[in-house]
Amino acid sequence: MEGGSAWGHKAWRFLRELRERSPLTQCITNFVSMDLMANTLLAAGASPAMLHCLQEIPDFTPHAHALCINVGTLSPDWLPSMKSAASLVTQLGKPWVLDPVAVSASDFRMKACLELVELKPTVIRGNASEIFALSNASLGPDKGVDSSHRSLDAVEAAKSLAQASSAIVAVSGGVDIITDGQQVVGVHNGVAMLQRITATGCAVTALIAAFVAVDPLHAFEATASALSIFGLAGEIGMDMARGPASLRMHLIDSLYGLDEATVVSGVNITTMS
Amino acid sequence: MEGGSAWGHKAWRFLRELRERSPLTQCITNFVSMDLMANTLLAAGASPAMLHCLQEIPDFTPHAHALCINVGTLSPDWLPSMKSAASLVTQLGKPWVLDPVAVSASDFRMKACLELVELKPTVIRGNASEIFALSNASLGPDKGVDSSHRSLDAVEAAKSLAQASSAIVAVSGGVDIITDGQQVVGVHNGVAMLQRITATGCAVTALIAAFVAVDPLHAFEATASALSIFGLAGEIGMDMARGPASLRMHLIDSLYGLDEATVVSGVNITTMS
Amino acid sequence: MEGGSAWGHKAWRFLRELRERSPLTQCITNFVSMDLMANTLLAAGASPAMLHCLQEIPDFTPHAHALCINVGTLSPDWLPSMKSAASLVTQLGKPWVLDPVAVSASDFRMKACLELVELKPTVIRGNASEIFALSNASLGPDKGVDSSHRSLDAVEAAKSLAQASSAIVAVSGGVDIITDGQQVVGVHNGVAMLQRITATGCAVTALIAAFVAVDPLHAFEATASALSIFGLAGEIGMDMARGPASLRMHLIDSLYGLDEATVVSGVNITTMS
Repeated sequence: MEGGSAWGHKAWRFLRELRERSPLTQCITNFVSMDLMANTLLAAGASPAMLHCLQEIPDFTPHAHALCINVGTLSPDWLPSMKSAASLVTQLGKPWVLDPVAVSASDFRMKACLELVELKPTVIRGNASEIFALSNASLGPDKGVDSSHRSLDAVEAAKSLAQASSAIVAVSGGVDIITDGQQVVGVHNGVAMLQRITATGCAVTALIAAFVAVDPLHAFEATASALSIFGLAGEIGMDMARGPASLRMHLIDSLYGLDEATVVSGVNITTMS
Repeated sequence: MEGGSAWGHKAWRFLRELRERSPLTQCITNFVSMDLMANTLLAAGASPAMLHCLQEIPDFTPHAHALCINVGTLSPDWLPSMKSAASLVTQLGKPWVLDPVAVSASDFRMKACLELVELKPTVIRGNASEIFALSNASLGPDKGVDSSHRSLDAVEAAKSLAQASSAIVAVSGGVDIITDGQQVVGVHNGVAMLQRITATGCAVTALIAAFVAVDPLHAFEATASALSIFGLAGEIGMDMARGPASLRMHLIDSLYGLDEATVVSGVNITTMS
Repeated sequence: MEGGSAWGHKAWRFLRELRERSPLTQCITNFVSMDLMANTLLAAGASPAMLHCLQEIPDFTPHAHALCINVGTLSPDWLPSMKSAASLVTQLGKPWVLDPVAVSASDFRMKACLELVELKPTVIRGNASEIFALSNASLGPDKGVDSSHRSLDAVEAAKSLAQASSAIVAVSGGVDIITDGQQVVGVHNGVAMLQRITATGCAVTALIAAFVAVDPLHAFEATASALSIFGLAGEIGMDMARGPASLRMHLIDSLYGLDEATVVSGVNITTMS
């Protein structure tokens, strides 16, 4: 069993290596999140590349150390790029992360996400509704991108999805759940007001990609560490915030400024099963 | 005749209901405004969904409580989605709001906006240039999205457009004008520096959609209330701002934090005819 | 030889005229930068128009005073608009500025940039890697949009590109280099943390377009002035910043608030050859 402190040191090592190696993290993401996602990666120390053009993938993607795919504003003209880039990085043995935003918004989106899951993402991160839906692979009425299920209820769905897909599955919520299908940890960092800022979920998914890039063989630990560190930056930002817009600013500033002592003492990850 | 105080209570009731019911507000908007629009809706208490894919509209749009369409970065591949979603919500008896950004920038854009007006928007919001142009339905040289006419001169154009389209028409400016073709009110909230922040007009249009969603039968009151509350948040934000970027932050924080006393005393709406 | 003070007065005259005349600056840019680019132009006093639709260019572009083209999220469906708008403004004798973001990311992008250079940009601005690559017109492995060469090493590459293209060439870096192929000046304003904010390079390219718009016959001086003033706003912002996100805010606020004394004393441009 690991306590918060061991996880704190682990998370710090990921962040320190990220800053040293600045992994090139390609993002094929939605229009809403591009700014916050790129700024999150830059603040953490990664090198973002928001490149989505199908023609460029054979030339560019092999240089990327990780890939983040987010279907938030999916359309048929972007899907081939997502599939092409995902296939290529899987083939090259590099990690990629899938964010199945609002997966049950339409048959089209569910089908696209199921096709992407077939391409072997290293990590899948969503809220409880999304992980439920993807796990059940059945279309239900979903209220957009906001979760209407609590994340703890999603543990079984997450484990099933992890087992079926061989991906690490992360469920964001009041407590974030991370599972590889067997072990489950909970991340207790973060603040509720993050849900009142658009694209924070998208941004943390990109951060997971950058964390996994620095140690692809430990994707489970990288995923939990990224979620914890992003949440910790949110906690520190919250002390200075007067509302969601100032929280967004202080979150990024805090992520940039995190030091070892703060990470080691602030990371709050517990074994859940 | 209604005084500011009655309008203050009215506006507060809209905001309170918005926070309680968190209406799902679909936005098909321009690339520039997506971030601010989503964050404005979240700060106000609504649930934004920036979903523009034609294939998803039959599945998703029926779940939305209101729709916001903005032509700011229009292109031929987005127009069918706008028309499809607008048709569907009109058919379902739900409200939608049109923002005819820079309508006279091109024949293509004017034609697109006229087609959208045919699909029965509940509200049309623009600056004076845009409302003039749309009302005249004639192409003139227009200086982008900035208004070169004062909003008060636009009262007659707004009334004509409202009568022709059966929409509530709102004209943003130093004083915002709202008309249903008969009655006219003026909203005296807001600060000039908002014009130095991109997409504030787009954001308030989305806020109107969310306000109308909570009481579609009172779209006139909802529109005036949304404009007033957004302007009031700008006034409060301005007290803390050092320039347009900090105003943008404080505006969103203030919108999030508005309480009953502030709204009731701060809303400044007057009957103009 | 000109000292910092003469350049200070020159830069101030550009900014003052920009604020008086508010040039309409059309931007065909990447999705990541649209928000910051529009807000930078608005804060400086220009009138941005993020319009990229091929069908609208014949109607709209003749009204623009300058054009900014940025290939950051290039795709085949946007390239014809870029080429059409660039051709038109060149034909009309108006200035335009090219930002060849990550030009060596792919053969497709390099070819597109070379085609755009054929359309006679008034100014080309990039980091050292980009200017090297475009100058060499040869594909090399490039680490996305971040420069891996120091800007001073790029003087010769910049001069060659300027001579071959007849454009002013600007190389962003610790010291920005500006050359017309003969004379070379260095801009010593700016702070390192700007590189940890996405799209600051894109934003300064748009600012160059607006500066050139107010005096197209002095594009060299306009380019140096824009880079210096943006960097100066960054320096002032840095005094208040706690990290990249607050720097971004204070940068825009500072750009908005710059006065004559600050510009005249703060602009730091030196002749380099």
